Amino acid sequence: MNIKMIGRFLSQIIGIEGALMIPALLISLGYGEYPAVKAFLMTIGIIAVLAGVLFALCRKTGDRRVADESLRRRFSRLFGVKEGLVCVSLSWIVMSLLGALPFVFCGQVDRYIDALFEIVSGFTTTGSSVIADVESLYKGILYWRSFSHWVGGMGVLVLLLAISSGKDAGFTMHLMRAESPGPDVGKLVPKVRQTAMILYGIYIALTAVNVVFLLAGGMDWLTALCTAFGTAGTGGFGVRNSSMAEFSPYLQTVTTVFMFLFGINFSCHYLVLMGRLKSVWKDQELRLYVGVAVVSVVALVLTVRPLYGTLGETVRHASFQVSSIMTTTGYATTDFDLWPGFAKAILLMLMIIGACAGSTAGGFKCMRVVLVFKILARNIRQILNPKKVQVIRSNGKPVDEKVLTNVNAYLTAYMIIIVLSVLLLSLDGFTLETNLSAVLATFNNIGPGLGLVGPTCTYAQYSDLSKIVMILDMLAGRLEIFPVLVLFSPSTWKRH
Amino acid sequence: MNIKMIGRFLSQIIGIEGALMIPALLISLGYGEYPAVKAFLMTIGIIAVLAGVLFALCRKTGDRRVADESLRRRFSRLFGVKEGLVCVSLSWIVMSLLGALPFVFCGQVDRYIDALFEIVSGFTTTGSSVIADVESLYKGILYWRSFSHWVGGMGVLVLLLAISSGKDAGFTMHLMRAESPGPDVGKLVPKVRQTAMILYGIYIALTAVNVVFLLAGGMDWLTALCTAFGTAGTGGFGVRNSSMAEFSPYLQTVTTVFMFLFGINFSCHYLVLMGRLKSVWKDQELRLYVGVAVVSVVALVLTVRPLYGTLGETVRHASFQVSSIMTTTGYATTDFDLWPGFAKAILLMLMIIGACAGSTAGGFKCMRVVLVFKILARNIRQILNPKKVQVIRSNGKPVDEKVLTNVNAYLTAYMIIIVLSVLLLSLDGFTLETNLSAVLATFNNIGPGLGLVGPTCTYAQYSDLSKIVMILDMLAGRLEIFPVLVLFSPSTWKRH
Repeated sequence: MNIKMIGRFLSQIIGIEGALMIPALLISLGYGEYPAVKAFLMTIGIIAVLAGVLFALCRKTGDRRVADESLRRRFSRLFGVKEGLVCVSLSWIVMSLLGALPFVFCGQVDRYIDALFEIVSGFTTTGSSVIADVESLYKGILYWRSFSHWVGGMGVLVLLLAISSGKDAGFTMHLMRAESPGPDVGKLVPKVRQTAMILYGIYIALTAVNVVFLLAGGMDWLTALCTAFGTAGTGGFGVRNSSMAEFSPYLQTVTTVFMFLFGINFSCHYLVLMGRLKSVWKDQELRLYVGVAVVSVVALVLTVRPLYGTLGETVRHASFQVSSIMTTTGYATTDFDLWPGFAKAILLMLMIIGACAGSTAGGFKCMRVVLVFKILARNIRQILNPKKVQVIRSNGKPVDEKVLTNVNAYLTAYMIIIVLSVLLLSLDGFTLETNLSAVLATFNNIGPGLGLVGPTCTYAQYSDLSKIVMILDMLAGRLEIFPVLVLFSPSTWKRH
Repeated sequence: MNIKMIGRFLSQIIGIEGALMIPALLISLGYGEYPAVKAFLMTIGIIAVLAGVLFALCRKTGDRRVADESLRRRFSRLFGVKEGLVCVSLSWIVMSLLGALPFVFCGQVDRYIDALFEIVSGFTTTGSSVIADVESLYKGILYWRSFSHWVGGMGVLVLLLAISSGKDAGFTMHLMRAESPGPDVGKLVPKVRQTAMILYGIYIALTAVNVVFLLAGGMDWLTALCTAFGTAGTGGFGVRNSSMAEFSPYLQTVTTVFMFLFGINFSCHYLVLMGRLKSVWKDQELRLYVGVAVVSVVALVLTVRPLYGTLGETVRHASFQVSSIMTTTGYATTDFDLWPGFAKAILLMLMIIGACAGSTAGGFKCMRVVLVFKILARNIRQILNPKKVQVIRSNGKPVDEKVLTNVNAYLTAYMIIIVLSVLLLSLDGFTLETNLSAVLATFNNIGPGLGLVGPTCTYAQYSDLSKIVMILDMLAGRLEIFPVLVLFSPSTWKRH
C-alpha cells in the first residue's frame, strides 16, 4: 500500500473541495447571511490547513522524476487497482466529513451525525434528508447542499482527472473505473484525461441547458441552479419543503425530461454528438431503460387514474415519478406513499432497477439487469446442453467472463447488504415497508422511500446507528460496493 | 424429447400416488366418514383409469430389450438431463392436480383452486393453508393433507427409485439430482437405487422415533402421526387451528428438536450411522446451520423476553420458532406476528437462509449461503490480485466451477422470482409486509408469513391470480427453480 501517494492524492481532493465551497460562500455573502459566511470560512480554513499538512507529510521522495519507461511501469504497478479503490473510498469519506462542517458551524443543524447524513446524501446523489424545513436554510447552505449533488454526480476524482496535468497517467484508469458507475467502464477516447474532460463537458452543457429551460419557466436563478444541480446529479434535494409539487406543470415536465436524460449512459450522449445515432438506437441497455420506463408509466397511469382529475395530470405525475425514481433522483410532485399497493410495488421495483450505467444515476443499473437475465438464460441453456460453450453477447460484442463474474458478485453483495441493513434498521421498530424502502432508497441513492420515509417525511426519526448504516449504504451504493468493501478488507492493509 | 418414456414414467408416479391414498381411505372408513371414503374411492378410480390409459398409450416399443452396452448408453443419452427435469416438474404438477381431488369430492373445500393450493402446499412441504378451521376436516382428509408433507419431503421420485427394479439406471441420477434439494447432490453409495433406499430408511426411522416421542407425551396416534409427518417433511400443516400452541411444553420441545434434525443434510445422518462423527463435526454447512440457529435464538430471547412470563418460556418459544422457520416447517407455538420489528426481521432473514441442502427443508439453503459468501470473498481477492487463480474449497475439497456458476444463477433466479411475485401479489392491495412475507413463505416452502398471512391467519383472502402465482412459487421453491424454468423454456420442446 503506497500510503504517501494516497495522502498526496487526498490533499488534492480536499483542496478541490475547499475551492468548490467558494461560490456558496459568495452567495451567503451576497445575501448577508453572516453565520453561514463564518461557517464556510471556518471550513475552508480547516481544509487549507489539513491539505497543507497532508501534502507536507506525504511529500514526494523523487519518484516524479522517473523518466525511463521501465521504471514508470514499475511505478504504475506500485499504484494499482488496490490503491485506486482505497483512494476513491477514502476521498469520498474525507470529503463528506469535511463537507458536513458548514451545516454545524452555521448552527442550522444541531448534531454532526445529521449533518454528515445530509452531506453524504448530497455527494452520493441520494437526496434523503433529515431537515424538515429546508426553506428556512441559509441560501448559501442550500446552494452547497444542492451543489454537492452536482459534484458527486459525475465524481470529484473524475473532475481532478479532467483538470490535473495528467502526468501520473498510469493509475488514472483505475481511479476512473472505481468512481464511475456501471459494470464495464469504457474510455470514450484513448486518453483518460480527455475522456474525463468530454464527460464533464457534456455534463456542464446539459446542466446549463436545463437551467435555461427552468429560467424560461419563471424560476429565480438560485432555485433554477439548485434544481438543475439536483436533476443533473440525479440527487433530489428539493429547495421547497414540498419538493417539486408547488412548481408549474411546465417546470415539472422540463424536470421529467432532464432527469431522464441524465439517467442515460453519457457515452450515448457522446455518440449522439458524434452523429452516430444508429449505434445509440441499437444500444440494448438504452432500449431496456426506455422500455421499462414506458411500461411503468402506463401501468401507473392505469392504477392511479382515479386519484387525479384529468388524464393529463395523471400522466404528468406518473411520468415524473417514474423518471425521478428510476433515475434515482427522488424529486416528487405528489405524495406517492398514498398510492395503492401495486403502484408502490412498481416504484420499489424501479428503485432496484435504476437507470443506465455510465450515467449519474444509482441503482443496480439497467446494464446489469440485461446481463443478469442473459446469464440466467445461458445457465438454462447450459443445463439442457452441457457440452456447448455459450458466449454472452452485449450489443453484438462478446462480454468478458470477468465482467460477468463481477456482475454476479455485485448482485450477491447487493442482496447481502440489503438484508443486513434492513435487519439493523429494524432495531428502531418501524414497519418493514419503511425499513426496506429506506434501505433501498439510500443504498440505490434515490432519496425518499415509503411509509415514514415517504416523500413528505424525513429520515430524522431514525437512531444514530441506523443513520450510520444508511450513510455506509449510500457510500456503498454510489461507489458500487467494492471500493468500500476493499477499504474494510484486512488483506488490503497487509504489508507485502 | 422422449415423450413416450415420460408418459410411462408419469403413469408409474400417479400409480404410486393412488396407492399412497389407501391409508387415508382406510382411516376415513374406520371413522365412518362416508363422504371422504367416496371422495378417495373416486380419486383412486380416476387415477387407475388415467394410469392405465397413459401406460397403454406410451407402451414400450422394444427398447427395454437393449442388451449390449453401447445401445444402452445411446438410450441413456436419449433420456438425459432435459427429460429428467421435465419428468420431475410434470410429475409434481400431475400429482398435485390429482391429489387435490379428495378435498373437492368430499365437499369440504368449495373451489378447486383452493384445494390445489392446499395440496401443492402439502407436497412442497410449505404448509400454507387456505382452510381456517382444520379441526372440522374429516380425519382421512386431515391424514392425507399431512401425509402429503411426508411424501413430498423426501420426494416421490426418490421413492420410486427406491422401490423400482432399477433397470433404467442410466437416467436415475438425473431424476434424483432434479428432485433433491441442494446445489450439489452426491451419492452416498455408488448405486443410485441404494442411495434412495438409505435415504428413505433414515427418513422412516427418524419419523418413527418422532412418533414414539410424541405418543409418550400423551398425543393420540392420529395427531402424533400427522404432527410427525409435518415435522419430518418440514411441512407444517397443523392438526389444530392454533398450530402447536395448545400442546404441552414437552411436545413443543420434542418437535423443536426433531424439526432441527430433519433440517440437517441426510448424508450427515448417514455419516453418524457409519460412525464417522469427525467429518460430521467438520462440515461447514452444519456449522453455519447450528451457528445461525444459536445466534438467532439468543437475539430473539433478548428481544421478546418482555412478552413472556419466565425465561424458560421465552427460550422455548424462541427456539421453537427459530427451528420451525429456519427448517421451513412453519409450525407455531405463539403468534410471532405480534413480536417487535427486529424479531420479525430476524425471522424474515431465517426464511431466506433456510436449512441444509440434502434435507427435507426448503429455502435458499445454508450450503448456498456458504458458497455465496466464498464467491464474494474470492471476487474481492481477485480485484486485489487479478493474476492469481483462486479456487474455492468446501470442506477441504475444491468446488467445481460449474457448481459455483449454478449457485450464482440460482441466486439470480431467486431474486427475480421474488420481485416479480411480490409485484403480482401487490395487485390485491395488501401491505408490503404481507405480500413479501407471503412470497418468501411460499417460495421457501415455509408456511405462515407475517401480517395478514401470519400464523393465526390463512391465505384464503388472496385472489385466484395470486394463488396461482404462489402455487408456482411453491413448486419452483421445492424443485429448486430450474426444473420449472426448463418446463416453460421453449427450447425444451423444440424438435431435434
